Amino acid sequence: MSDTVTLSLAEATDLSTAALTANGADGENASAVTDIMMRAERDRCASHGLFRLPGYCASLKSGKVKGDARPVASEIAPGAVRVDGQGGFAPLALEVGLPVLAQKAKTQGIAGMGLVNIYHFAALWPEVETLAEQGLCAFAFTQASPMVAPAGGIKPFFGTNPMAFAWPRPGQNPYVFDQASAAMARGDVMIHARDGHPVPLGTGIDEDGNPTTDPNEVLKGAQSPFGGYKGSNIALMVELLAGGLIGSVFSPEAGRLDNKDGGPPVGGEFLMAIDPAHFGDAAHWAQHCETLFSELTAMEGVRLPGERRRKARLETPTSGIVLPRSLLEKINGLM
Amino acid sequence: MSDTVTLSLAEATDLSTAALTANGADGENASAVTDIMMRAERDRCASHGLFRLPGYCASLKSGKVKGDARPVASEIAPGAVRVDGQGGFAPLALEVGLPVLAQKAKTQGIAGMGLVNIYHFAALWPEVETLAEQGLCAFAFTQASPMVAPAGGIKPFFGTNPMAFAWPRPGQNPYVFDQASAAMARGDVMIHARDGHPVPLGTGIDEDGNPTTDPNEVLKGAQSPFGGYKGSNIALMVELLAGGLIGSVFSPEAGRLDNKDGGPPVGGEFLMAIDPAHFGDAAHWAQHCETLFSELTAMEGVRLPGERRRKARLETPTSGIVLPRSLLEKINGLM
Repeated sequence: MSDTVTLSLAEATDLSTAALTANGADGENASAVTDIMMRAERDRCASHGLFRLPGYCASLKSGKVKGDARPVASEIAPGAVRVDGQGGFAPLALEVGLPVLAQKAKTQGIAGMGLVNIYHFAALWPEVETLAEQGLCAFAFTQASPMVAPAGGIKPFFGTNPMAFAWPRPGQNPYVFDQASAAMARGDVMIHARDGHPVPLGTGIDEDGNPTTDPNEVLKGAQSPFGGYKGSNIALMVELLAGGLIGSVFSPEAGRLDNKDGGPPVGGEFLMAIDPAHFGDAAHWAQHCETLFSELTAMEGVRLPGERRRKARLETPTSGIVLPRSLLEKINGLM
Repeated sequence: MSDTVTLSLAEATDLSTAALTANGADGENASAVTDIMMRAERDRCASHGLFRLPGYCASLKSGKVKGDARPVASEIAPGAVRVDGQGGFAPLALEVGLPVLAQKAKTQGIAGMGLVNIYHFAALWPEVETLAEQGLCAFAFTQASPMVAPAGGIKPFFGTNPMAFAWPRPGQNPYVFDQASAAMARGDVMIHARDGHPVPLGTGIDEDGNPTTDPNEVLKGAQSPFGGYKGSNIALMVELLAGGLIGSVFSPEAGRLDNKDGGPPVGGEFLMAIDPAHFGDAAHWAQHCETLFSELTAMEGVRLPGERRRKARLETPTSGIVLPRSLLEKINGLM
């Protein structure tokens, strides 16, 4: 028997919806959370796809996350939006908030949005990509619970604290990156551990602070920031934006509050959206930027991030997605 | 004879003013440019202090940069400011624009500012620190001319493309970082070359794309981004913000336009300012953030960026600053 199974995207959607519903999500939340995992599966980003479903279900089951949350968006300043997630998962809060943020950016030139009282367990590229598809430049930041040692330290303090950025390219896919301020995303370290693969040196340290290539030791010890103190500075910036600025919690606080049920800790997310038509040359900014992309991608060895995702996106609607059989069994056991 | 000289800050100020004036800067521009170099010297950031004065003077002398520019700020959207530097150095444009940006951030919650038609040859921390001292969270980004190879490539394409961030800490010094998306700032590579010191592996590559520790080879070849492809993504983000968004030029364009007189190329700068009082808990955000800083700095081995600068700032008003004699002689030769 093969140790993998192939599902169509429709089958995967049904599976996710059934599992979330069985664990207490209502229709709107199950749909929003499933959609965010399906965007990852469609792009073959396994670490943010159905791999997360057991965690989502665990947090519903433990009662930590509200499966019937109704997030509320409010305008708190001409350029500022706040979404109270009401203790639910982030995807529905984003569905509520993103249109308000986009509208504000288009009238103000720039706008910011803080999501508080949410549980974020997904990648950040879906939200910035959504904004860029509407012609906006976008940033997103979120904290987590302590997993990364600050530069110079050996104990976990920061979350993997990703920062995502998207740039609109009218008529084609936006330029998007979504990168942990950790050297490796948590989900990828977990997948390396699951599959018994070593991680590159620099990914993290063991409990005594020694560099290691064993992902299990890194998970017990601490991940390292990317690029040394510079990545560490970005991690702290993310704490200040997604925790301090918007009135949410910092990763160490989130870690202390968490019930360790396997799902995400409570947290916040900060986004910014900017309308290039307001800042530069409204008629030519996009065309001007294409000259940069052309010149860059003409260089030997250089490619833009997200190309592999976009290629997968064209294939998975017909090829379906491949899951470890153990994951499918785990998911079936959730219902 | 010692190969260094000690000057008081007042003497250094007079020296800079005289040299800039002798090369065609009017009083306002000489004062703004001198002030920005003195902020660096005061903090013992040699690479952005008087070390830059010959470059500033060269660009005045060649006629590339206008010594009598009068930058003009305009409000282009409720949250957007544009400053046309009118072909002058950045410092006077920033003096004109920063109060407008700060005011907008305080009323809108968030605001952005594009500076175009400027010549930026300074660090970015002074502008974000200035905004943070007014209670605002601030970002700044600027491009340059091609010096850094994109991840995967071997030819210079990006500028060193710094990103600076500041967080206000009422009652004490703001948290500030200002970091090149290159592994090492250009000025530091130049100072290593001048002083005959090797640079760490990873700083850059020679003309054939081979890793090297010789700063002269790096200057002939290409610098590398910090943290591999993640730093490269940040470099591209900076191009898009400081070049594409605000209607300025990209580093490769700036490089082609430049007369190579030793001063900075034409460019742009993008800044954002955010008022934490609008996004989170207006009464407690600062206090909440101090719990994070306390917990972080209590960790063994961890220190915040800028501490060395702040220490120097307390000392140099009495100790003066130390310059290589060769630099003083070079500066005297400019007049």
